[in-house]
Amino acid sequence: MTAADVHAAAERIRGRVVRTPVVQARLGERTLFLKCENLQDAGAFKLRGATNWVRSLDTEVVRRGVMAYSSGNHAAGVALAAQRAGVKARVVMPHDAPAVKVANTKSFGAEVITYNRFTEDREAICRAIAAETGATVIPPFDHVLTACGQGTAALELLEDVPDLDALITPIGGGGLLAGTCLVARDKSGSIRLFGAEPELGNDTWLSFQSGERQQIPPSETIADGLRSPMPGALTFPVLRAHLESIALVSEAEIIEAVRWLANKMHLVVEPSGAVPVAAIPKLPDSVKRIGVILSGGNVEPAQLAGYLAA
Amino acid sequence: MTAADVHAAAERIRGRVVRTPVVQARLGERTLFLKCENLQDAGAFKLRGATNWVRSLDTEVVRRGVMAYSSGNHAAGVALAAQRAGVKARVVMPHDAPAVKVANTKSFGAEVITYNRFTEDREAICRAIAAETGATVIPPFDHVLTACGQGTAALELLEDVPDLDALITPIGGGGLLAGTCLVARDKSGSIRLFGAEPELGNDTWLSFQSGERQQIPPSETIADGLRSPMPGALTFPVLRAHLESIALVSEAEIIEAVRWLANKMHLVVEPSGAVPVAAIPKLPDSVKRIGVILSGGNVEPAQLAGYLAA
Repeated sequence: MTAADVHAAAERIRGRVVRTPVVQARLGERTLFLKCENLQDAGAFKLRGATNWVRSLDTEVVRRGVMAYSSGNHAAGVALAAQRAGVKARVVMPHDAPAVKVANTKSFGAEVITYNRFTEDREAICRAIAAETGATVIPPFDHVLTACGQGTAALELLEDVPDLDALITPIGGGGLLAGTCLVARDKSGSIRLFGAEPELGNDTWLSFQSGERQQIPPSETIADGLRSPMPGALTFPVLRAHLESIALVSEAEIIEAVRWLANKMHLVVEPSGAVPVAAIPKLPDSVKRIGVILSGGNVEPAQLAGYLAA
Repeated sequence: MTAADVHAAAERIRGRVVRTPVVQARLGERTLFLKCENLQDAGAFKLRGATNWVRSLDTEVVRRGVMAYSSGNHAAGVALAAQRAGVKARVVMPHDAPAVKVANTKSFGAEVITYNRFTEDREAICRAIAAETGATVIPPFDHVLTACGQGTAALELLEDVPDLDALITPIGGGGLLAGTCLVARDKSGSIRLFGAEPELGNDTWLSFQSGERQQIPPSETIADGLRSPMPGALTFPVLRAHLESIALVSEAEIIEAVRWLANKMHLVVEPSGAVPVAAIPKLPDSVKRIGVILSGGNVEPAQLAGYLAA
């Protein structure tokens, strides 16, 4: 898995995903360059990896459809990528996934199969359906096609703003950040790379402390896109090789970042996408020009209303 | 006042205002191209006209400062344009202007003078202070430098998306729409031009019906940027010459458009800016590719929360 895989993904998905805008913001003495994947089709960066997958498969294979297990945005991304390629998508989602993400996925024509994320094994359910139908399972993060598809967001950001000091993204399973690290380090030996995680979903931070992948119990963080319990086998070594550090943020800090993005920047960003903004004050003072991947915008209206009214 | 004035304004303000992104959206069978002036510095298109003014004044004149009377966004635009030019701004605002807009204006270093919009004459207050200080009053809409500065938003949109069927903007005093009409008609003899107004602030619609400028009583529409009681003497003839029609929208339709923009498009847009989106279903069926100026995003957090929770 190298930067060349990100460049190949960029070629493959060109014109099939939105080249999202970059919005500039001041935060104290720092300048943020917000890569607005909340304005991506299907509302999140996940369409990139999914499109990279669908457009990589043989015609014969893709014809049998694609599958995914996901808390939400990966599901919607796979559904839309499949719909655009004219093939069927089946998605295994937790019973308590945000309704807006379930509706989003169904709106792109996917079949949604729900499971209990506290008692059932989503990968096993997914494998069984795939075995029966011949559909291809698109992994949510731990695969070169997924991670390097996601890395195209950082590639575009670096094309638009080449002179960044640093880049920061949220960490779920680490796909977005691994793809980001590969393409950013290839462009610059000196750019500083950071990850951001909720305190309540600190599996990658714990793994960094111990040097080995750690699993945490099911997480209840409001950053529902970052609840994956363990970093990927493929993504974790990439993060270890390139990341300067991982910043942890509290639930209150995440809400404050959602509020700031809505009230000051006029952008609706879901809690997972606001996590790297919440982490900015925790970065070293020397970091001034920071690229930030706002990973998605799919937040329940009532939930957002609650944050804004608080 | 011609398209050449809009092009001159574009040269003058280049690099001093944000070239805002265009976000594509589907609405039924139509494709909308949303020009995101909610992502403009100071949160609205008003920075364009204000910057065009400040950068047009002689050094001697601008040194004595600038003034404005405004319900909010024009105030903030003048304040920021003045701050960037290193000169003082004084702003006369109604006592019941949205707190977020007053705070926004003060944050750019302007002195804010409040008045009662039901009993006092803001223009007279403004003239008195200007006479004493020698400051230049920047009119909110009825001047070639203001209207043609605002028209640069449409110019950029047409550069980014040349093959539009139509353009629509909200109508306050008509400055944004007049500048838009001039530059759009210059680029295309066939592009269809529309305005959108709240039913509760229908002064321009009434003026179109009668063929002469009509004044309405102070308006209570939630679209607080569109409460000006009468179209401009300079802007109204331009609108009459170029507009196909004006669509009126109810308060409920405005709120629904704010909700759609936040929930589906992940953009925070103030009620005034959502008015042209609310008007889309009222346009002729033959209009399919529509440029929409989302004029601003400065909405009270509690007000937005109320709309989202509804």
